[in-house]
Amino acid sequence: MILPIFLIFSLLSSASNAAVQDFCVADLKGPDTPTGYVCKKPAAVTVDDFVFSGLGAGGNTSNIIKAAVTPAFAEQFAGVNGLGISMARLDLAVGGVVPMHTHPGGSEVLIVVSGSICAGFISSSANKVYFKSLKKGDIMVFPQGLLHFQINAGKTPALAFVSFSSERPGLQILDFALFANDLPSEIVETTTFLDDAQVKKLKGVLGGTG
Amino acid sequence: MILPIFLIFSLLSSASNAAVQDFCVADLKGPDTPTGYVCKKPAAVTVDDFVFSGLGAGGNTSNIIKAAVTPAFAEQFAGVNGLGISMARLDLAVGGVVPMHTHPGGSEVLIVVSGSICAGFISSSANKVYFKSLKKGDIMVFPQGLLHFQINAGKTPALAFVSFSSERPGLQILDFALFANDLPSEIVETTTFLDDAQVKKLKGVLGGTG
Amino acid sequence: MILPIFLIFSLLSSASNAAVQDFCVADLKGPDTPTGYVCKKPAAVTVDDFVFSGLGAGGNTSNIIKAAVTPAFAEQFAGVNGLGISMARLDLAVGGVVPMHTHPGGSEVLIVVSGSICAGFISSSANKVYFKSLKKGDIMVFPQGLLHFQINAGKTPALAFVSFSSERPGLQILDFALFANDLPSEIVETTTFLDDAQVKKLKGVLGGTG
Amino acid sequence: MILPIFLIFSLLSSASNAAVQDFCVADLKGPDTPTGYVCKKPAAVTVDDFVFSGLGAGGNTSNIIKAAVTPAFAEQFAGVNGLGISMARLDLAVGGVVPMHTHPGGSEVLIVVSGSICAGFISSSANKVYFKSLKKGDIMVFPQGLLHFQINAGKTPALAFVSFSSERPGLQILDFALFANDLPSEIVETTTFLDDAQVKKLKGVLGGTG
Amino acid sequence: MILPIFLIFSLLSSASNAAVQDFCVADLKGPDTPTGYVCKKPAAVTVDDFVFSGLGAGGNTSNIIKAAVTPAFAEQFAGVNGLGISMARLDLAVGGVVPMHTHPGGSEVLIVVSGSICAGFISSSANKVYFKSLKKGDIMVFPQGLLHFQINAGKTPALAFVSFSSERPGLQILDFALFANDLPSEIVETTTFLDDAQVKKLKGVLGGTG
Amino acid sequence: MILPIFLIFSLLSSASNAAVQDFCVADLKGPDTPTGYVCKKPAAVTVDDFVFSGLGAGGNTSNIIKAAVTPAFAEQFAGVNGLGISMARLDLAVGGVVPMHTHPGGSEVLIVVSGSICAGFISSSANKVYFKSLKKGDIMVFPQGLLHFQINAGKTPALAFVSFSSERPGLQILDFALFANDLPSEIVETTTFLDDAQVKKLKGVLGGTG
Repeated sequence: MILPIFLIFSLLSSASNAAVQDFCVADLKGPDTPTGYVCKKPAAVTVDDFVFSGLGAGGNTSNIIKAAVTPAFAEQFAGVNGLGISMARLDLAVGGVVPMHTHPGGSEVLIVVSGSICAGFISSSANKVYFKSLKKGDIMVFPQGLLHFQINAGKTPALAFVSFSSERPGLQILDFALFANDLPSEIVETTTFLDDAQVKKLKGVLGGTG
Repeated sequence: MILPIFLIFSLLSSASNAAVQDFCVADLKGPDTPTGYVCKKPAAVTVDDFVFSGLGAGGNTSNIIKAAVTPAFAEQFAGVNGLGISMARLDLAVGGVVPMHTHPGGSEVLIVVSGSICAGFISSSANKVYFKSLKKGDIMVFPQGLLHFQINAGKTPALAFVSFSSERPGLQILDFALFANDLPSEIVETTTFLDDAQVKKLKGVLGGTG
Repeated sequence: MILPIFLIFSLLSSASNAAVQDFCVADLKGPDTPTGYVCKKPAAVTVDDFVFSGLGAGGNTSNIIKAAVTPAFAEQFAGVNGLGISMARLDLAVGGVVPMHTHPGGSEVLIVVSGSICAGFISSSANKVYFKSLKKGDIMVFPQGLLHFQINAGKTPALAFVSFSSERPGLQILDFALFANDLPSEIVETTTFLDDAQVKKLKGVLGGTG
Repeated sequence: MILPIFLIFSLLSSASNAAVQDFCVADLKGPDTPTGYVCKKPAAVTVDDFVFSGLGAGGNTSNIIKAAVTPAFAEQFAGVNGLGISMARLDLAVGGVVPMHTHPGGSEVLIVVSGSICAGFISSSANKVYFKSLKKGDIMVFPQGLLHFQINAGKTPALAFVSFSSERPGLQILDFALFANDLPSEIVETTTFLDDAQVKKLKGVLGGTG
Repeated sequence: MILPIFLIFSLLSSASNAAVQDFCVADLKGPDTPTGYVCKKPAAVTVDDFVFSGLGAGGNTSNIIKAAVTPAFAEQFAGVNGLGISMARLDLAVGGVVPMHTHPGGSEVLIVVSGSICAGFISSSANKVYFKSLKKGDIMVFPQGLLHFQINAGKTPALAFVSFSSERPGLQILDFALFANDLPSEIVETTTFLDDAQVKKLKGVLGGTG
Repeated sequence: MILPIFLIFSLLSSASNAAVQDFCVADLKGPDTPTGYVCKKPAAVTVDDFVFSGLGAGGNTSNIIKAAVTPAFAEQFAGVNGLGISMARLDLAVGGVVPMHTHPGGSEVLIVVSGSICAGFISSSANKVYFKSLKKGDIMVFPQGLLHFQINAGKTPALAFVSFSSERPGLQILDFALFANDLPSEIVETTTFLDDAQVKKLKGVLGGTG
């Protein structure tokens, strides 16, 4: 069987002219669009754009919340740009907590890799709470945009990996949103019913002004 | 000009066989799906499915927040089911406030029809606050899932209409999510850094237990 | 309670590295994409990007249709870029009419703020007409892409605000599409069955040629 | 090489438990949803759900427009339900015309298989017309929701196949929308600027009342 | 401060009338739609719908591929229905391999929890291969629909968790698609260029007929 | 009837300020984004951007597969950029075959224009095969991402046109993915169960290395 190799290459070439967009690795220095960063030129893409090692080491939990969230969103992991998925690593020291927060841009699934975690979310209709203590291997889903939290409920450090239905799910931590900026205390109090002393105390802790 | 009328009707009939789905009025008694309610049978649809009069009258603002939100979401206004848009009416008495809240499922545009409103939202990256006093005729956009608020900043009642980029945008009011359910106080405190007394006080006000 | 402030700031910084895309304010001088304009640099964004005052004043209704449509689409109101929502103001003098038109890119909800408006749309399956006289406070939804109209049905000027399920819904006014360009009269006549005299009369009125 | 067949079958069975949704053949007797019909039970699906022979024969062009559109939308071709694509056959006798129309739900690509066709569309911004005479083998795209038309520009019958970016693109024929229903003549005239005589003439031809 | 409790409850009730759709837990016995299963009634939903423990135990790797894939898709984990995310557990014994496969419905991110895995995918434009040996903590993304594989490249069992950008990503294993059904050998050979003996050998192994 | 022409032009101008995005013709030299190329400036767009003549002539079938696929994707036909639809021409000489392949980015509909074609696809759940011999005028749909093939089953050349639910559906030909690149033979064999001799033979034919 003698094959017309040159014809095959012509076919191959024709197929590659069809230039599908299999992926769109983020060009983080290029412009951003409503659906993600512009793409790196295909010729500049390598396997390292699709691999990220930043979740291999634990985050620093020596902080007020005894927890660390290490993201692998499009800004850190350019290969997920436009693909509708991303991850993060969650380290919780004993007593650690990921405070009440939302992801405005995506739903989340969490898997407990070690330790145990008490996690929950609050629905918007009827304000119903769904929470449970999760053991190693358990997974839990947190629907997009709803307030949720994770607490190390055990006596050993806990490790979890979380995945999101967006490459840029966002992270709005309630306390930071309320107390770590220059939103006037009076507005915070009016819109949350919190006492002035409470607001000022937490602004002090979190670096807020006004 | 004599026209072959029977042929025209045959053509019409053929066109209507093509049965496009111009709309999908919610059958609120039928099953719900990830993208909205199942549709009413086309033959049962009337113009009244596409018109809603429930925003014509002011909501009752004789309450703790001196405000009322009257929704015209798919549950109230079946005609918007599947169309990616809905509305609500916002009445704010003098001193009224729509407390800090999010819409997990959609972005919002607000237009001030009378009075003046101080409105703002908090971004998730860097926790930056964007707020401004809006006068009659001003519009402001609140991106999906971000904490935001509206306050009657004037000396007369204020009226605004808000529109959403979803027929079911959701409404998660922060205080209700934290204090109006059975989420244990200990968890609230751990995940918000609020003091025990503050949490219990607001649970008392808002009917929360635990 | 002494807090490790530097650790908190490190956490904050880590969170903001996660750099979610809360919004994408249009850079109107930058390139356009299939899903909207490229985004302004976050550092250049201010609250004024999210507020628009152009709908505060009535449009000029001293024209052939005694009506004015004032848009707040992405081109006018850069903050809605990518958010799937926009608005417009509709002024109708006595006898005013928004002629038969479509929005190719989005569904519309209209709310009557003053006066009364007769509005309707035509479905594509079976060509059924849905129309009704709307009074102050009534809302009506017009599904994407369908022909619809609004007429001031009363004895006073009417004002309405309309919202769209897209930041760039488009506006194709039937008469302008047919009679205000250089589409040859012969083609107009062949594709609409309108008489030659009718076509030429309206081309004359609306500035069409050919 | 002796293989543990029973283990393989267990693996196969496990894989099929993962029950992906490769397709969702329409159950046309079941409820409709905003994104298409509910699915036939997988066990009831056969290859004939994915094959449609209805475009093999020419439509009847012995009518007022000397043209026939034969759709293969989800209602006729259940296999495309949920897949975002559909087709139609377009037969144009000599002098035939597909009158000015829109597809509210999808963009269209047309390919000329025999004869020649003059086709065009009108943009909504600036009302610019794009039209051209297409010969056999040419393709043309018509963006979603814009008015467009096709005319047999030659001396032989023309055949084209059109594809849509939706399984239910819809078809709103301008003349049928205006003149083939019970929309009152006065409203038609007010919203189109057409003369009363013109409106009544076409209502007569197309079976409209009112 | 005496609070008008009954008014608060009226407000709460009004808010919950707005009945957002925070989630749509699959009713696996109800009809399927193009975008997922119909939803369980909200009143029947419990926290256990959002938690899944099936990934806690290793799959059985005593099979031909020395590997096991345990899915937590919508069929197994009803809480992810409609949320655009799901997971699976991947166990690879020494020498284990997840054979060449695609996920037609979603992109995948894999995280190595123990052992090391050689993983790769093949782009469709230019057929370029991207593969790398991943160590514990590394993550890799596989764009939707592209052929990819995972091999235990080490001397110890490997464990990975994979997440998908869809609640039903699908899993098409190349060898099963070609050799584990009744697709006639002649067609397999014609469309893959594989030799007859090769095809029949693998049909024998994998249970195919024809 | 004297008309205030200057007012009309002012209205026209206002309407065009609303600058909808009817289309986004690809600027193939500009950056690519996750949803397509950036748009050509509207002023530079002409009707020729929406018309493509490249499918008018048969592809060269003097090759190993006796077939030719001529694409009209966004790279060839800039007008479809962002519109979710594209086409290709399929020429099959006697004995010709489009080998087993997938389109990662879209579903396909095929229409037989001349000759007869045996076409089929394999579902991922249960690996069920759906195939049939199609005659002139028949159409068949191939769901997104699933392996499928087309064979000229007759004694004359066959011609088909295929349409896709994406302007860049991609094309991953199984044999090219496995044998026409530098993926090491050992990996190919491990992940496909193919014999070493078979792999090396096809690598030889298709130009693969390693």
